[in-house]
Amino acid sequence: MNNFSFRNPTKLIFGKDTIANLAKEIPTGKTIMITFGGGSVKQNGVYDQVKDALKNHKTVEFWGIEPNPTYETLLKAVALGKENKVDFLLAVGGGSVLDGTKFIAAAMCFQGAEPWDLMQNPRLITAVIPMGTVLTLPATGSEMNSGAVISRKATQEKLALGTPLNFPVFSILDPQTTFSLPKNQVAAGIVDSFVHVLEQYLTYPSQSPLMDRWAEGILQTLVEIAPEAMKQENYDVMANFMLCATMALNGFIAMGVPQDWATHMIGHELTAYHGITHGFTLAIVCPALMQVMKADKHDKLLQYAERVWQITEGTNEQKINQCIEKTEQFFRSVGVNTRLSEYGVGKDTIEKIVNRFTERNWIVGEKRNITPSIVREILEKAL
Amino acid sequence: MNNFSFRNPTKLIFGKDTIANLAKEIPTGKTIMITFGGGSVKQNGVYDQVKDALKNHKTVEFWGIEPNPTYETLLKAVALGKENKVDFLLAVGGGSVLDGTKFIAAAMCFQGAEPWDLMQNPRLITAVIPMGTVLTLPATGSEMNSGAVISRKATQEKLALGTPLNFPVFSILDPQTTFSLPKNQVAAGIVDSFVHVLEQYLTYPSQSPLMDRWAEGILQTLVEIAPEAMKQENYDVMANFMLCATMALNGFIAMGVPQDWATHMIGHELTAYHGITHGFTLAIVCPALMQVMKADKHDKLLQYAERVWQITEGTNEQKINQCIEKTEQFFRSVGVNTRLSEYGVGKDTIEKIVNRFTERNWIVGEKRNITPSIVREILEKAL
Repeated sequence: MNNFSFRNPTKLIFGKDTIANLAKEIPTGKTIMITFGGGSVKQNGVYDQVKDALKNHKTVEFWGIEPNPTYETLLKAVALGKENKVDFLLAVGGGSVLDGTKFIAAAMCFQGAEPWDLMQNPRLITAVIPMGTVLTLPATGSEMNSGAVISRKATQEKLALGTPLNFPVFSILDPQTTFSLPKNQVAAGIVDSFVHVLEQYLTYPSQSPLMDRWAEGILQTLVEIAPEAMKQENYDVMANFMLCATMALNGFIAMGVPQDWATHMIGHELTAYHGITHGFTLAIVCPALMQVMKADKHDKLLQYAERVWQITEGTNEQKINQCIEKTEQFFRSVGVNTRLSEYGVGKDTIEKIVNRFTERNWIVGEKRNITPSIVREILEKAL
Repeated sequence: MNNFSFRNPTKLIFGKDTIANLAKEIPTGKTIMITFGGGSVKQNGVYDQVKDALKNHKTVEFWGIEPNPTYETLLKAVALGKENKVDFLLAVGGGSVLDGTKFIAAAMCFQGAEPWDLMQNPRLITAVIPMGTVLTLPATGSEMNSGAVISRKATQEKLALGTPLNFPVFSILDPQTTFSLPKNQVAAGIVDSFVHVLEQYLTYPSQSPLMDRWAEGILQTLVEIAPEAMKQENYDVMANFMLCATMALNGFIAMGVPQDWATHMIGHELTAYHGITHGFTLAIVCPALMQVMKADKHDKLLQYAERVWQITEGTNEQKINQCIEKTEQFFRSVGVNTRLSEYGVGKDTIEKIVNRFTERNWIVGEKRNITPSIVREILEKAL
């Protein structure tokens, strides 16, 4: 097992009618900027619950953090926050609102001229405004980690921001908020959570049987509950989906093991160039990457086939092919496309992405052997 | 799933040669009291590594925290700490040293006349001295939770202390420290970790399939690695044992699920009256409790039989009997006794324990239905 250091200080407040806890989680002396996406929280009652809980707090609101939150939008929030001398941030929404708010938290404390520098060099982040979250969309895990992904329209870039300072102080997860989500967002959340686990699991055997079991536990649970989760009816099912999504990317299954993240790196480019929803890009890249990296990931693919998909018949080669097929079918079973052609994306985009990997010297994967030409191979397999 | 709140701020620093990290984890301005058990850390090199790492820090040493740390001993440490104006505690050892140090941390800040009051009423704990740990014995999970169990010789009591203030700031786990442990301590640690998981898992189906999978993941890993762990030769095996023990009792598998803890409550009394090592008491109580509570725990026992022990043949009744037998065999396979008679404990002690449960109105178990007379039944089954 590799040496590791783990710390996750976020307080998770989970369950029915927990939004009311906001009042006691944020000291009353604070000036809070509440950040939102579009208006869905006004329809599903979350906005009213938040405002009611904070009726004795001083609040300002920032609306309009978009899916794949953009630098351009977030700078407006930074200005509003500074203007109002905000000293606490509360993100209410899905991963995009949470990610965007992490950037706001860092940028509000940044003295330099160009906050985009924080994306290139996280060491510039020496302080952040403390933040809490009310999560309404299980998917990204942002509610219990310190990462964020920010896009910049001007340059068609999508980059990850990471600093241990960016853990939310608390996150409130009320599974009831998921009942009114658009179906395609539930589907994207299932795929996103599933692939988060695979990025930390589907590498090579690494002497951590416990972490393997925990990763497989999330994968199995997602496979089991997905059909019911898509119906958005059963509280316990939605609660488990929400718990799976958080546990998939909070460091709990990453202790001492190698990680991949190539699927995400490639997927981000599909979002950057075509605006495809993050989870949907993963469903395209993931099965193709498994195919192309079959030799490198052989032993772990076999374990995945046997333990997650209960494939026990056939040769190793057959088991591996079957589990890749089952993975793609799983994504399709929740209504998610798995091919570039289904989005009208063709070879020209593939070349743009390969060029970006080349220009930036991005060599990805757990063995750092996914070169730009292998990225091409993966994307061509996904056509 | 039940509503829950989860927070675990302890930083885990895990791996080979990590004790040297102490220097940067504790600010140099601090006066540190280092707490120890007997002298084993002087033989295995841990003492030298700790002192070397802290050579630029001001330190005082307190030696002699015994297994099942006693109030009487800990009060001496409290006095030494106050005398030296200690403002950081570093526990170096196994769960007893860690637990004892948690009590010292709270008692040093307590203004009342009788620190034992903190055991009866944890609300009296409003501040603690911050503490870090260097763990040398995987078993109790104390390195990443806020609990502690303290004994009082004068009254033959063994009580749990719990306050969220008592999480260690950091814990350093170097699996190499386990190579020189006495074999019976490794065995006790395996049993202790295993039963910690069962206390949180073997209750009733509770709509948290993910928590079930994670609990089963620890149990399966412990069963798989136990024979190799007993040899104390392989780094990765010992690392996984250490990781299992920490994950068994840090709240990660307790989210939204019911918990039992009757085995521990009964086991503590066996330690209080006969000084039997904590892990060994659990090996006595656990299989007997499964037998007696078979009807209440029916569904979960069946799941445990099928998923942890891969018992797929026979009637439900047969599967359950088999898994109870396998549990007892597992404890015996690491050299641990499972019967009261093997320790020369008889009916007189059983009556003393039943009386204590009666006097204190302790009704335990996940359904709060283990009355004193059921405690008798369990202990008689374990004779």
